[in-house]
Amino acid sequence: MVVVNGKTPSFLPSLVWKYGNIYTMGPHSGKRRILCPRDEHSLQKKVKCRFFAEYAEKIPGESTQMLSEAAKECGIYLVGGSIPEEDGGKFYNTCSVFGPDGKLLVKHRKIHLFDIDVPGKIRFQESEILSPGNSLSMFETPFCKVGVGICYDIRFAELAQIYAKKGCQLLVYPGAFNMTTGPAHWELLQRGGQAVDNQVYVATASPTRDETASYVAWGHSSVVNPWGEVITKAGSEEAVVHADIDLQYLADVRQQIPITLQRRNDLYCVNTVQDG
Amino acid sequence: MVVVNGKTPSFLPSLVWKYGNIYTMGPHSGKRRILCPRDEHSLQKKVKCRFFAEYAEKIPGESTQMLSEAAKECGIYLVGGSIPEEDGGKFYNTCSVFGPDGKLLVKHRKIHLFDIDVPGKIRFQESEILSPGNSLSMFETPFCKVGVGICYDIRFAELAQIYAKKGCQLLVYPGAFNMTTGPAHWELLQRGGQAVDNQVYVATASPTRDETASYVAWGHSSVVNPWGEVITKAGSEEAVVHADIDLQYLADVRQQIPITLQRRNDLYCVNTVQDG
Repeated sequence: MVVVNGKTPSFLPSLVWKYGNIYTMGPHSGKRRILCPRDEHSLQKKVKCRFFAEYAEKIPGESTQMLSEAAKECGIYLVGGSIPEEDGGKFYNTCSVFGPDGKLLVKHRKIHLFDIDVPGKIRFQESEILSPGNSLSMFETPFCKVGVGICYDIRFAELAQIYAKKGCQLLVYPGAFNMTTGPAHWELLQRGGQAVDNQVYVATASPTRDETASYVAWGHSSVVNPWGEVITKAGSEEAVVHADIDLQYLADVRQQIPITLQRRNDLYCVNTVQDG
Repeated sequence: MVVVNGKTPSFLPSLVWKYGNIYTMGPHSGKRRILCPRDEHSLQKKVKCRFFAEYAEKIPGESTQMLSEAAKECGIYLVGGSIPEEDGGKFYNTCSVFGPDGKLLVKHRKIHLFDIDVPGKIRFQESEILSPGNSLSMFETPFCKVGVGICYDIRFAELAQIYAKKGCQLLVYPGAFNMTTGPAHWELLQRGGQAVDNQVYVATASPTRDETASYVAWGHSSVVNPWGEVITKAGSEEAVVHADIDLQYLADVRQQIPITLQRRNDLYCVNTVQDG
């Protein structure tokens, strides 16, 4: 698995092509080739939520076409960060996932909009412009089933719990935590409420840190194993990091501390509302 | 709030009286006087699960009578660790909570029995002897509502989620993690899946570490705030640590990052089975 801590490009396609060599590193024997660059370029470029609308695209559109072509050219699963999507006059924060044949596998619209207000530190109100997605998003690969969230979605443990319950062994979150929430919670959320509580691998992909931007991203794209250990982590600078998703190790952890079997489904349950 | 990292006594009452002076430190103006020593003395004394039966008591019984008297004498809320309980020929791992008048407020029987097998490191099968509890356990104080779990219960995030949903602002777990799970997960679980995911205070109380015991406890009784910070932590040795449960701070955190309001109850839910 390859995770890109990507410098925000002036436009999305440059990200894809800049890292084209990554996609073409050839087969990684025994490695899980699922790639998740992170863009959310409007956040970085101009920062205020009102620019979501200005940079929004249809999906499929120019950016996702590039992502699709990159996935196909390199024969990889590509979790394509997130971009502002326009659909029917509404705007979404959307992550598109492509298969090795370039086909769109799933489109995740951020379910939980990032509306926070930490006085004197950061205020950000996505809901002023964006509409939320209303679906969970999973896709199958020959390696394992993968659940997708975007950034703030990671704070809502139910999402990960349902993904794990439905068989996902890897959860992927493109995300751009900031300089307040990043040091406090970015790694903690991945390791605690996500990886250990559900015994899954967790991968996050962040933009690099740009101190001159008005929204400064924390960086630190990471992969965490089901024991809660960070097995690879980028810094705040541009970086490409690799990790093996070891499903035998995951099975061992689940056998050793069998919380999945030991859940008291007779006492409590986490479900999608649809499932009842 | 006072947490006792207690040296395992040869019998439970010594724990109570040894720390008698703690209870009588006088009113802590503005402090939350909820105390949680940890015993689970059979675990420490003889270690094998078969001793659960040998050391089991009725509740009320000798040990809980002592706890009740201590709570009354000191005018405190006392979360009395856990002891093996015998009831109707079955055995439970049970935590009793007493109010300032000495009355039993709630009795929590460990819901999730600790059956793990990490090859070459630790194997422990509580279910060979114990029966699980079948109820969640909360109690009201003039300060806040408190949810109770025992040790392994902390790995099951649903419990904390339901407690938080039902209004608990403090979760208390007497627990004895070991030298494998302790360094890996003791603090991580408190900070991540418990405190940050639910924006609650979390307190744990552990026995001290005794390297000569066959079950070696990790120690490190702690209190974690709703931002995921460890605000007090004992070492592995005997210690008494204090922390303020600051409900205004908790309210501030919940206002700044309002995940409670932003949960997508239209998409997913965590419930007790009874509540539907």
